[in-house]
Amino acid sequence: MSVPVSPLAPPALAALPEIAGVRIATAEAGIKYKNRTDLLMMVFDRPAAVAGVFTRSKCPSAPVDLCRDNLAQGFARALVVNSGNANAFTGRRGREATALTAEAAAKAAGCEPSEVFLASTGVIGEPLDAARFAPLLEGLVTSAGADRWREAAEAIMTTDTYPKLATRSVSIDGCAVTINGIAKGAGMIAPDMATMLSFLATDAAIAAPALQAMLKEAVEPSFNSVTVDSDTSTSDTLLLFATGSAAARGCPAIDDPKDPRLGEFRQALASLLLDLARQVARDGEGARKEIQVTVQGATSDQAAKRIALSIANSPLVKTAVAGEDANWGRVVMAVGKAGEEADRDRLAIHFGDIRVAVGGERDPDYSEAAASQVMRRPEIPITVELGLGNGRWTVYSCDLTKEYVAINGDYRS
Amino acid sequence: MSVPVSPLAPPALAALPEIAGVRIATAEAGIKYKNRTDLLMMVFDRPAAVAGVFTRSKCPSAPVDLCRDNLAQGFARALVVNSGNANAFTGRRGREATALTAEAAAKAAGCEPSEVFLASTGVIGEPLDAARFAPLLEGLVTSAGADRWREAAEAIMTTDTYPKLATRSVSIDGCAVTINGIAKGAGMIAPDMATMLSFLATDAAIAAPALQAMLKEAVEPSFNSVTVDSDTSTSDTLLLFATGSAAARGCPAIDDPKDPRLGEFRQALASLLLDLARQVARDGEGARKEIQVTVQGATSDQAAKRIALSIANSPLVKTAVAGEDANWGRVVMAVGKAGEEADRDRLAIHFGDIRVAVGGERDPDYSEAAASQVMRRPEIPITVELGLGNGRWTVYSCDLTKEYVAINGDYRS
Repeated sequence: MSVPVSPLAPPALAALPEIAGVRIATAEAGIKYKNRTDLLMMVFDRPAAVAGVFTRSKCPSAPVDLCRDNLAQGFARALVVNSGNANAFTGRRGREATALTAEAAAKAAGCEPSEVFLASTGVIGEPLDAARFAPLLEGLVTSAGADRWREAAEAIMTTDTYPKLATRSVSIDGCAVTINGIAKGAGMIAPDMATMLSFLATDAAIAAPALQAMLKEAVEPSFNSVTVDSDTSTSDTLLLFATGSAAARGCPAIDDPKDPRLGEFRQALASLLLDLARQVARDGEGARKEIQVTVQGATSDQAAKRIALSIANSPLVKTAVAGEDANWGRVVMAVGKAGEEADRDRLAIHFGDIRVAVGGERDPDYSEAAASQVMRRPEIPITVELGLGNGRWTVYSCDLTKEYVAINGDYRS
Repeated sequence: MSVPVSPLAPPALAALPEIAGVRIATAEAGIKYKNRTDLLMMVFDRPAAVAGVFTRSKCPSAPVDLCRDNLAQGFARALVVNSGNANAFTGRRGREATALTAEAAAKAAGCEPSEVFLASTGVIGEPLDAARFAPLLEGLVTSAGADRWREAAEAIMTTDTYPKLATRSVSIDGCAVTINGIAKGAGMIAPDMATMLSFLATDAAIAAPALQAMLKEAVEPSFNSVTVDSDTSTSDTLLLFATGSAAARGCPAIDDPKDPRLGEFRQALASLLLDLARQVARDGEGARKEIQVTVQGATSDQAAKRIALSIANSPLVKTAVAGEDANWGRVVMAVGKAGEEADRDRLAIHFGDIRVAVGGERDPDYSEAAASQVMRRPEIPITVELGLGNGRWTVYSCDLTKEYVAINGDYRS
């Protein structure tokens, strides 16, 4: 089945500059796909500080286990990613495949296996034949170049309809540094053919613990606030590498996450992650509209987030958006089922700038025509005011269309 | 849009006997639908003991508020149900509509408004014009008859494709009594056009507190263990009325829920509720297959239930079932995301009697052909063995098809 590019794709892909200390190569390993790249290697010629955030699944993939183990020491020399096979729920053979890949990558890059990071995305439960691509890694290290971020983003795609790229330039204490990032998504997450993977690199000289603290904070309002279908992958992986090569240009080396000189970097990291996360939502399987759910006036930010997720994950809200139906009754339903404090008679709901409900009933000035106008847009902002406190959160999602069902269910029909 | 009868409908509708002390009437009130009944009245000529279980939504409908209030005194003389309008999120006007209906019903039945129970199902947020049908209630009381359970089940339908009926005959201390039940569902729950409502009546002489205790217990493995789309209505209502008229035939009157003479009744009540609940799942919007998810070996029954619901609510599992795809990787994903204890390397998964995964990987004897055979059946049993403890639960659901999206999203296309 051929799937057209999402109507929500960015008009032009971001052009990513080189990051000193990062070299990239891709290959067609034929793991599952034909006539496209499915293997990515990133090489850090000097040890890069690394931070990572992973799926909360109790059934994580073998590469997630390996990354968690290797993260403890805080340095990376190589990243190897394959698409087409998730190496998840593959038992002993899965661990053998990650060990084999890490050893081959370490040999090729001239480092220890514990300095190699891995990610896999694709089919679950199918043994990954690492012997098939391990021999390619030496050639990748030799041929790797700094100007291949787009190729990197393309090699990790599964059911994505466009590669996801973003970049930010910021100053640390007056010295310019860059952050680049790529991501893949599609289902959030369709373990058979997808997984959220994202890899970032910067030339800033920031130590691993500070990097980890900033990444963990930035992931909450971004990747942890997007949902396509409420399904969490066994394989979600987000890694941030800091080569530190900017130090050679006189940029400061920073250890402390609270160092005030990181202010701009922290903001740029948050903005870049949100950019990538929204690109993932906007390329959700079958998506035709982005849904932006903001809940405010909740008893806490966490309560606001739970209610926003309840709305964004509701199949009935998502199908209504697909049908361009300003069905605010379903928003009331999703607020009610979230389990967080809510007072029916204080609720107000906006679709875009149209207030559709207030004080526990339909807005007296409600105009079906005005609300329908909002629903025809590609982005649908839904705002719920609870009137209870100062808690606030925004979640990004997409609509639920027949194409989602077709992509995920039409194997035999 | 005309929707064909679910392929999972029972081959024949259950024929419900009369229950002494219950009279039923229906009418075409034209609340929303044309050329069909949309108003149901049940009259109990003597006060019936009543028990009820309601939605956990924080935004309950006005009739749910009224039922909760009136339940305290434990007796009912009349039930009025309308379809086509949920009277939910209707604010002050919603409360005025329930008050007006209760007063009109009380006047017609010759009782107090506090002895009247109400339920409404249909559109949310639209004011319910109770003045339209209140004048009909007096005629309904006059014309009500005991042999109209099927008419009752039909009058409360919304997007249901068949009426849901069940009956059980049991003995209490050697004396035969009957339990009848009707239900409506469709989405679980599509607030725009659906809500789970169920009404039961028995001639047994059981006091309200005992009735309430048994109902609460029986609802957990039945109505609280079905899910169509994970969306909870503002209006879910389950009421059980006991007329006590069997006492005139010498049946015992029972006050204590622990009375051992209730054993058979308790079992029949559980079986009848499960029967109705499964009829609701099998008539889920767009459903073509019933999914029966059993999780065993969990650390507790509640943990098993949470994992079973995570599987049964997963859009990816449900679309795979729709596509007749034995995609056990998505079951692993859903176990992993449930948040309950699970050990990937001890998991075993069965589709029907075919073991597809064991010991954290694909079953060595896995046969795609055998698994596909199971997936072609109308009922798909999925069993997950966690190998951790004795916790066990079964949840009933249905597949997610393009028809679900069409029913809930095709308003403007």
